[in-house]
Amino acid sequence: MLIVMDHHCTQEQVREVVRRIEDKGLTANPIPGESRMAIGITGNQGPLDPNDFDQLPGVLEAIPVTRPYKLVSREVKAESTRVKVGKLAVGPPDFIVIAGPCAVENERQCLQAARQVAAAGAQMLRGGAFKPRTSPYSFQGLGRTGLEILRRAGDETGLPVVTEALDEESLGLVVELADVVQIGARNMQNFSLLKRAGRCGKPVFLKRGLSATLEELLMAAEYLAAEGNYDIMLCERGVRSFGQHARNTLDLTVVPAAQEQSHLPMFVDPSHGTGRRDKVAPLARAGLAVGADGLMVEVHPEPHTALSDGPQALFPQQFQELMGTLRLMAPLLGRTMSLPAELTP
Amino acid sequence: MLIVMDHHCTQEQVREVVRRIEDKGLTANPIPGESRMAIGITGNQGPLDPNDFDQLPGVLEAIPVTRPYKLVSREVKAESTRVKVGKLAVGPPDFIVIAGPCAVENERQCLQAARQVAAAGAQMLRGGAFKPRTSPYSFQGLGRTGLEILRRAGDETGLPVVTEALDEESLGLVVELADVVQIGARNMQNFSLLKRAGRCGKPVFLKRGLSATLEELLMAAEYLAAEGNYDIMLCERGVRSFGQHARNTLDLTVVPAAQEQSHLPMFVDPSHGTGRRDKVAPLARAGLAVGADGLMVEVHPEPHTALSDGPQALFPQQFQELMGTLRLMAPLLGRTMSLPAELTP
Amino acid sequence: MLIVMDHHCTQEQVREVVRRIEDKGLTANPIPGESRMAIGITGNQGPLDPNDFDQLPGVLEAIPVTRPYKLVSREVKAESTRVKVGKLAVGPPDFIVIAGPCAVENERQCLQAARQVAAAGAQMLRGGAFKPRTSPYSFQGLGRTGLEILRRAGDETGLPVVTEALDEESLGLVVELADVVQIGARNMQNFSLLKRAGRCGKPVFLKRGLSATLEELLMAAEYLAAEGNYDIMLCERGVRSFGQHARNTLDLTVVPAAQEQSHLPMFVDPSHGTGRRDKVAPLARAGLAVGADGLMVEVHPEPHTALSDGPQALFPQQFQELMGTLRLMAPLLGRTMSLPAELTP
Amino acid sequence: MLIVMDHHCTQEQVREVVRRIEDKGLTANPIPGESRMAIGITGNQGPLDPNDFDQLPGVLEAIPVTRPYKLVSREVKAESTRVKVGKLAVGPPDFIVIAGPCAVENERQCLQAARQVAAAGAQMLRGGAFKPRTSPYSFQGLGRTGLEILRRAGDETGLPVVTEALDEESLGLVVELADVVQIGARNMQNFSLLKRAGRCGKPVFLKRGLSATLEELLMAAEYLAAEGNYDIMLCERGVRSFGQHARNTLDLTVVPAAQEQSHLPMFVDPSHGTGRRDKVAPLARAGLAVGADGLMVEVHPEPHTALSDGPQALFPQQFQELMGTLRLMAPLLGRTMSLPAELTP
Repeated sequence: MLIVMDHHCTQEQVREVVRRIEDKGLTANPIPGESRMAIGITGNQGPLDPNDFDQLPGVLEAIPVTRPYKLVSREVKAESTRVKVGKLAVGPPDFIVIAGPCAVENERQCLQAARQVAAAGAQMLRGGAFKPRTSPYSFQGLGRTGLEILRRAGDETGLPVVTEALDEESLGLVVELADVVQIGARNMQNFSLLKRAGRCGKPVFLKRGLSATLEELLMAAEYLAAEGNYDIMLCERGVRSFGQHARNTLDLTVVPAAQEQSHLPMFVDPSHGTGRRDKVAPLARAGLAVGADGLMVEVHPEPHTALSDGPQALFPQQFQELMGTLRLMAPLLGRTMSLPAELTP
Repeated sequence: MLIVMDHHCTQEQVREVVRRIEDKGLTANPIPGESRMAIGITGNQGPLDPNDFDQLPGVLEAIPVTRPYKLVSREVKAESTRVKVGKLAVGPPDFIVIAGPCAVENERQCLQAARQVAAAGAQMLRGGAFKPRTSPYSFQGLGRTGLEILRRAGDETGLPVVTEALDEESLGLVVELADVVQIGARNMQNFSLLKRAGRCGKPVFLKRGLSATLEELLMAAEYLAAEGNYDIMLCERGVRSFGQHARNTLDLTVVPAAQEQSHLPMFVDPSHGTGRRDKVAPLARAGLAVGADGLMVEVHPEPHTALSDGPQALFPQQFQELMGTLRLMAPLLGRTMSLPAELTP
Repeated sequence: MLIVMDHHCTQEQVREVVRRIEDKGLTANPIPGESRMAIGITGNQGPLDPNDFDQLPGVLEAIPVTRPYKLVSREVKAESTRVKVGKLAVGPPDFIVIAGPCAVENERQCLQAARQVAAAGAQMLRGGAFKPRTSPYSFQGLGRTGLEILRRAGDETGLPVVTEALDEESLGLVVELADVVQIGARNMQNFSLLKRAGRCGKPVFLKRGLSATLEELLMAAEYLAAEGNYDIMLCERGVRSFGQHARNTLDLTVVPAAQEQSHLPMFVDPSHGTGRRDKVAPLARAGLAVGADGLMVEVHPEPHTALSDGPQALFPQQFQELMGTLRLMAPLLGRTMSLPAELTP
Repeated sequence: MLIVMDHHCTQEQVREVVRRIEDKGLTANPIPGESRMAIGITGNQGPLDPNDFDQLPGVLEAIPVTRPYKLVSREVKAESTRVKVGKLAVGPPDFIVIAGPCAVENERQCLQAARQVAAAGAQMLRGGAFKPRTSPYSFQGLGRTGLEILRRAGDETGLPVVTEALDEESLGLVVELADVVQIGARNMQNFSLLKRAGRCGKPVFLKRGLSATLEELLMAAEYLAAEGNYDIMLCERGVRSFGQHARNTLDLTVVPAAQEQSHLPMFVDPSHGTGRRDKVAPLARAGLAVGADGLMVEVHPEPHTALSDGPQALFPQQFQELMGTLRLMAPLLGRTMSLPAELTP
């Protein structure tokens, strides 16, 4: 059930609606919008009766919600969300590029990558300190040391940093040291982690699982929102299919489909989505063209020496060229991209 | 095995190489290129010995070919093919848009659609007269009458026409009345039809099957080429996956992958690829951005009355807006799009 | 619409109902059952009115049919169909094993295989004379010669023969020389071929396409039935998925699902379904256990010399052992398997 | 690298090999076998030199291992593992059936289910206390209370209990109160949880992820083994595909494929694998027939009232019938099934 409040409702009327909801043993989720306030009701087992609410003072309408997700849906909040990350606002009309190495390997590599992507115009820095690896014998990331390096690289370049948390312990460190918490594809349905991330107080970057439907992705986001965290960015990073010509099948149709169902910003990761360097730039351009709200791209100062996922990392020069093309395309698609500092007049 | 001839080789030297190949019971497939001639050898069961050929006069090199496809591969012909369709040349740097209704329904509908897509700048007209339908009880197309209507619509608007052939009988009619023969996704591995289309004397527009790998698509094209028909256009139209948010999963990564392996032009069909009207324009833009050589788009004067696939057909006005955006994007991506007649200075 | 006739209805009453149907420009498909007669109506574009029929003398009920397939559905015919092939009846409670080489290679190989599978208890002989091959350069089958060899092998061993038809031409030859026409996975949606096979007068063995849904398989069968051919056997042979441990993913759940929706017999092909010899026997046993009405298994006298699909063909000795196990299991599963001639008391 | 020790090697020789391995900064994983001892080396970045080890006293052979998984592979340990769970030994030739409700709902329901499945011959009891649910608004399990109920039900019926752990906290409780820790499909690549489960001291029941390859499943098991836990049971529970006729596509071919690559027991879960009650028994029989080492089946005293996954739970009577059929089939397939107590002479 969604309670839509009147334009001119008072704070006291809102509080009264919340009280009624809580009296029934349910949870009230106030959702402030630009034009008016709505209140999502969660925690009910079966359907609720609209008549219990729509006669209350200040209530415009009580809408039974049919989608299994509520708080993240456009039914509940029609305007697109702009997620605040430091001075940035992520969401339309801005087009945000997050870039950096797959894994933080050492101070020199990370700082060099940060400077290169900042110079090319990236607005956020990525880099993994905790790496989910298929093999127990692969490099698992530098852990806390890696986070500290990433933090310093972010501070020096002025870029907010996003990095993956794998479990309770790493989540605590990521919240302490980074600006955005990434939940990776393999953990998209790690519901314990989602609940904790929903209470962590930092924005979350949530990647679609390898065989997750759109509904499952939105339900995963709903786990975050149900804990009170509405600062969520979604990301398509390729699904598993029968094809052999790329590591994954990047599903760009999910971008407009997600934006239709949800008010949350939707990114594309062409690096994991293809797994091959020479496919990254074409699919990054396609991501902008299809209407994504941003990209997450892997860039490495020396891809051939990378400790993980080297074959999909762009050379800094390739990234710079890609950014140049994207900046030319963006205005044709109704998108705004900021210039890198050095090109700013 | 591929025999690469010297720049300055004579016609007589080429004939001599062909003779040697045929003496071994094999087939010689001369492949003229811009800078030099190559001769593909097919029909061999096992590997051939390069020494049998590379000492012949005029031969630059004899290259054992490891891919299962030969004639359609870049190993055999490095330059991108430009397929001649009437006055058009399909292939880079041109970006070609084929548009029209899913099915030819009657003279009025077809002619109206043709005029509308021509006015918006489409360069080829599509329309089905023989429809492969999942149900025997669905509209199966107007057959010969439909082809004749399509022909008149093409003649009146000056657009070459492309339409699907399903079997020997319809292939004969399509060859007689249309400019390009389409082989649909369900027939991509109908090898009898491919062989016949390979001998039909008209260019072929070959769609990727719903679960075909890139290699299988190229092998299907090789069937055409092995019969002597090199005028082939490939098309991605969505593959089958677990997702529920669109009818198919449009696999845009296959576009640069196909262009890397093959010299043939590669199209994208965002209409069948998504199955939903509101996803067609975003995915069409993404198709251009990813580097496709063209699009095939369904447009219907009155989609709500369409006898087949109405929900995915664009309104004429939507198509016109899409074309405007594509024309702005094209030069940024190194592509050339012609203006519609009325906008031509 | 399905017209269910009364137990005691007369032939004249049936004829009258058929006349009424045809007067409306529709097609009447009489479907005789053991206990009573039903008449399927096809050819209608939209829904029909039950009142037009259920007041006619001899009519028990007029049922609007909601599934897109009608003639092949259990809604229309509740009892399982037993397809007559020579002296055999295919369908429950019998469990039928069809075996033989992938391709007919020569008289000696084919006859040897036929004798071996007959001795082990197979009840039908398979062998391809027209092979759909991914590559135009692969062995394409012996054609008419192959069919004649197969016919002689069938006659000598007393086994009916089943073999694939690819197009109009090969269909004519197969109908002339074989007992059952196979439509392969790649042609499951070759609707021209299906229509012709529906009029060919021989039973059809229809394989599920590599990415066909159950509904699409049943609609393909409906194409056959709509042309008057109700002698249809269905076959699961593996679908395409992301797995790497076998050539295809054999979907055994589709067996009870198909039997629930349709009255037609449902086979399993563990040879194409797995692509690996050592997986054939386990999956063949699983096919019996899941409730299939029969198996199609590839057996070759000398698999290592096979011209196609050698790696999945059983050695004759392996096939004999498999048959021994199946015969022990069958009665526990309510199935009847005939003994090979030499073991018959 | 795998060091295979001589039959007659001494404990001191083993210790010396371990010391050499650890001197190189690597990890030695002693793997006791029935006939001889092997030592797996892990932690190396690149290949090792066999000559460093095969001259040591007591060493038979030093084998470079090419598969990415080592400790769980047949290369390292040829005999099938029998996992000890209380008095049970899980692994060939025994065929073990684990049964019980999807979720523990209350004492009465759980105890009733436990008695029913024990009476029918099940040898382990399942039941979820921590449920991974797609929606945050669905029943999430009774937690510790549920575990305590399950423990009592196991104690009363004499059945060891298996139940899922979702995170660090629930793992601790499961280890305390249950006999086997289940890692569910959605957590198959939750590497933090796998590492913890590898150190937990209880056997682990590891389910294949919805789009996990066989190699990824074995690598997940390798995470457990690399932490010292070799008591691992694997389980196929259906993968995600395009089909609509069942909730998942149960991939039975993976059973013999896993058993070929790994020495670990491999189960089949036909309940999640199909999602539909009427498909459970056929696929359960197929699981036995294909060679699985056991089944996990959901049974509920009153499926229509179940709080989760009711539509796939068997009625107790159906389960009893299924067990009767399985007991008849097992000896034909070289498998041993114990009789329920009341039927034991």
